[in-house]
Amino acid sequence: MQTSPFLGELIGTMVLILLGNGVVANVVLKQTKGTNGGWIVITTGWAFAVTMGVFVAKAFGSLDAHLNPAVTVAFAVATNEYSHIVPFISAQMLGAFLGAVLVWLFYLPHWSVTADPFDKLAVFSTGPAIRKPVSNLLSELICTLVLILGLAGISSKALGVLAIGVGPYLVGVLVWSIGLSLGGTTGYAMSPARDLSPRIAHALLPIPGKGSSDWGYAWVPVVGPLLGAALGGFLIRLFAL
Amino acid sequence: MQTSPFLGELIGTMVLILLGNGVVANVVLKQTKGTNGGWIVITTGWAFAVTMGVFVAKAFGSLDAHLNPAVTVAFAVATNEYSHIVPFISAQMLGAFLGAVLVWLFYLPHWSVTADPFDKLAVFSTGPAIRKPVSNLLSELICTLVLILGLAGISSKALGVLAIGVGPYLVGVLVWSIGLSLGGTTGYAMSPARDLSPRIAHALLPIPGKGSSDWGYAWVPVVGPLLGAALGGFLIRLFAL
Amino acid sequence: MQTSPFLGELIGTMVLILLGNGVVANVVLKQTKGTNGGWIVITTGWAFAVTMGVFVAKAFGSLDAHLNPAVTVAFAVATNEYSHIVPFISAQMLGAFLGAVLVWLFYLPHWSVTADPFDKLAVFSTGPAIRKPVSNLLSELICTLVLILGLAGISSKALGVLAIGVGPYLVGVLVWSIGLSLGGTTGYAMSPARDLSPRIAHALLPIPGKGSSDWGYAWVPVVGPLLGAALGGFLIRLFAL
Amino acid sequence: MQTSPFLGELIGTMVLILLGNGVVANVVLKQTKGTNGGWIVITTGWAFAVTMGVFVAKAFGSLDAHLNPAVTVAFAVATNEYSHIVPFISAQMLGAFLGAVLVWLFYLPHWSVTADPFDKLAVFSTGPAIRKPVSNLLSELICTLVLILGLAGISSKALGVLAIGVGPYLVGVLVWSIGLSLGGTTGYAMSPARDLSPRIAHALLPIPGKGSSDWGYAWVPVVGPLLGAALGGFLIRLFAL
Repeated sequence: MQTSPFLGELIGTMVLILLGNGVVANVVLKQTKGTNGGWIVITTGWAFAVTMGVFVAKAFGSLDAHLNPAVTVAFAVATNEYSHIVPFISAQMLGAFLGAVLVWLFYLPHWSVTADPFDKLAVFSTGPAIRKPVSNLLSELICTLVLILGLAGISSKALGVLAIGVGPYLVGVLVWSIGLSLGGTTGYAMSPARDLSPRIAHALLPIPGKGSSDWGYAWVPVVGPLLGAALGGFLIRLFAL
Repeated sequence: MQTSPFLGELIGTMVLILLGNGVVANVVLKQTKGTNGGWIVITTGWAFAVTMGVFVAKAFGSLDAHLNPAVTVAFAVATNEYSHIVPFISAQMLGAFLGAVLVWLFYLPHWSVTADPFDKLAVFSTGPAIRKPVSNLLSELICTLVLILGLAGISSKALGVLAIGVGPYLVGVLVWSIGLSLGGTTGYAMSPARDLSPRIAHALLPIPGKGSSDWGYAWVPVVGPLLGAALGGFLIRLFAL
Repeated sequence: MQTSPFLGELIGTMVLILLGNGVVANVVLKQTKGTNGGWIVITTGWAFAVTMGVFVAKAFGSLDAHLNPAVTVAFAVATNEYSHIVPFISAQMLGAFLGAVLVWLFYLPHWSVTADPFDKLAVFSTGPAIRKPVSNLLSELICTLVLILGLAGISSKALGVLAIGVGPYLVGVLVWSIGLSLGGTTGYAMSPARDLSPRIAHALLPIPGKGSSDWGYAWVPVVGPLLGAALGGFLIRLFAL
Repeated sequence: MQTSPFLGELIGTMVLILLGNGVVANVVLKQTKGTNGGWIVITTGWAFAVTMGVFVAKAFGSLDAHLNPAVTVAFAVATNEYSHIVPFISAQMLGAFLGAVLVWLFYLPHWSVTADPFDKLAVFSTGPAIRKPVSNLLSELICTLVLILGLAGISSKALGVLAIGVGPYLVGVLVWSIGLSLGGTTGYAMSPARDLSPRIAHALLPIPGKGSSDWGYAWVPVVGPLLGAALGGFLIRLFAL
């Protein structure tokens, strides 16, 4: 069968969310082996979820391996070439939804032993540490801007070609860095696919004792990342990074 | 003396289990220096146990360095070439048994100061966080499928040849990722050699105050990984990853 | 628009401080997601803050990517070429100030929920674990000397050219190592830009319930790093490292 | 001035012990910033202490960068070429002594605030979790054998030449792995220089409230590593790894 960029983005984002949301499940749900593993477990898990999503996406045909609508938007703005946007983002949103369903299935016995509905939502989508929409929006914007500038740096023309295999690892290290340093306020969604698709899954799936999907907050991790990505893409174009 | 793929698989898997089961001993047994080190210690330890097992296996003559019957099965299915299966899996099972004996010997003074027989078994073999055979089987299947797809991505023809030395490191990072994110339900055995051979060692070795070897669960970390591996190998062949 | 070494040092140091001081904010401020994350979170966060600062600095035109007046001084002494000092250090000090302002803005809702004024200052600048100026000065001198010798080793002519992309990662690992091992006494400032510019920001910014900016200690993380850097630069020149 | 293998071994081992014993000081002494940082801090710190020691040793003229008498013995046995042994081991023992003195000086204010004399000795030298000489000796032998086989694997002729810079990092990862998995019984000395020279420093230095230097145990982390190294070197020669 044929691999393709669409398939690569879909499968890659699915693996990214399975691993990324999976580490939150492991730490937040009860009676898991990683329960209360702490911020180092969360951030290391998300870092290498991205690395592995990138490897799988490339193998299935997406050599760009964006896995995130914000990244797709940033590089569209940077290159002034918008044709990828609709197919890539569609694949990412669908892949993220499927990844969230897999996390639900994978941790199936643990939903009913976890009492707090906020913990259950946290496995799917981000929420603010302190709810202040303007600050939260700014956090997501800045996180995503650092993500885009970091990606530009890692793949900068000025640095030449990366050693094979090192690139996806360094992208994981970038996400590690952002999570450790800037994940403290809103949980570094940085991607509509990472946040909105799993939120839809949370709303649709039969999760025992689940609470609200917190739709009032859902726009923040969509709008903030897109604004940060557009700004980052504009800077890349402006400075020819 | 001659190195060979059989010898490489045997020694490599022995080192893998010595280091991998060793980190569980360090965290789970009492009066060790790493006791209660937490999930980050377990997962980091297992990650680089794999990296080092791969390096040692290659040095002793197994350039493929599978170290896991599930990996051998997956690549047999992917390439439709089954001649490696019997010698490789024999070497892996034997190496894992010897590795488990070494862990027992290495941590010898700590068995009698550890009261809980479940902790002692945990050093040898995995057990489910919540015992639900169908869910547990599915967990092992999905973990192993992600392992196989990740390996396919890391060694994908589309990405070219890895920088020397980076490959075994990235395989360790893959195992780190799976452990952090998907290790929460069944302890990510992903390999009959990693689970069954040490369970046999647990049954045979004179361990003070040991309990059951939990044979009722033993089929799950054998069947789940083999199913996941076969499915992964089939996907690799289907999409020519 | 034109990138340049000045711009690269400025933006790179800004990102370095946003991420580096950001991880301290995440661990030290209250009601963050990383609160009480521990020394492993602090040191891993600072490590990859440096890696990412270096990548961004290079992309914006500073291929040297010093990001630290002590590094600039060390390589000036090593090469006996002092023309970079004024523009580089100006860019670093300004970038670090802007980075500290960004951290303040990023964690805005968390200042008023954190009671202890020492915790708030710790987000901006280092302070001694035990206040003994001579020992503290010596700590900063030794930390910085190890930093300079480590940088000399990583970029040593004897080792040839680093694989692209690996260099900034290894510099992060160097900072990880110093933080883990030598960060225990004074918090491994190792840079006037990292310490003095954020201290000025702390003095100027409207932070609810802030206390003293501890100007009595401010000279230590300026003088210590510069002495260590000069000594390191001298050793590099002496031994032609 | 001239760099040389002797100087490289001396300075490299000094840096190795400053960073390696430094991380123990940070975790074990009181009122440090890393106090009670846990096993993940200890093992990560030791891992990259080795990486950085190797880089510095190479820059100062020791391209082999053994930094450990056991490694020197192993490669002497492996190559049947013993002329390096006396100068290398002399440099390593002296460098380790100087490194231990630097740790004492670096953490000077923290000795008097730490009550337990065992904690103070632990900064210098290893001690057994459970004192059983035969088991302890076997632990050190096995740790060192894994170290030697891992080094053989990382630098194996079968794998070709490592990417520049990746080698010292992978050696750090090897030490990370051994510490996490096999450090639980005796604290993975694996080197007479790492253990004996700092023990001599502990005996000589004026440390407030220090206790015994535990000379009764001192032979174990000398004899165990040398036996493991000789066995490892013999296996390398036997199998031409």
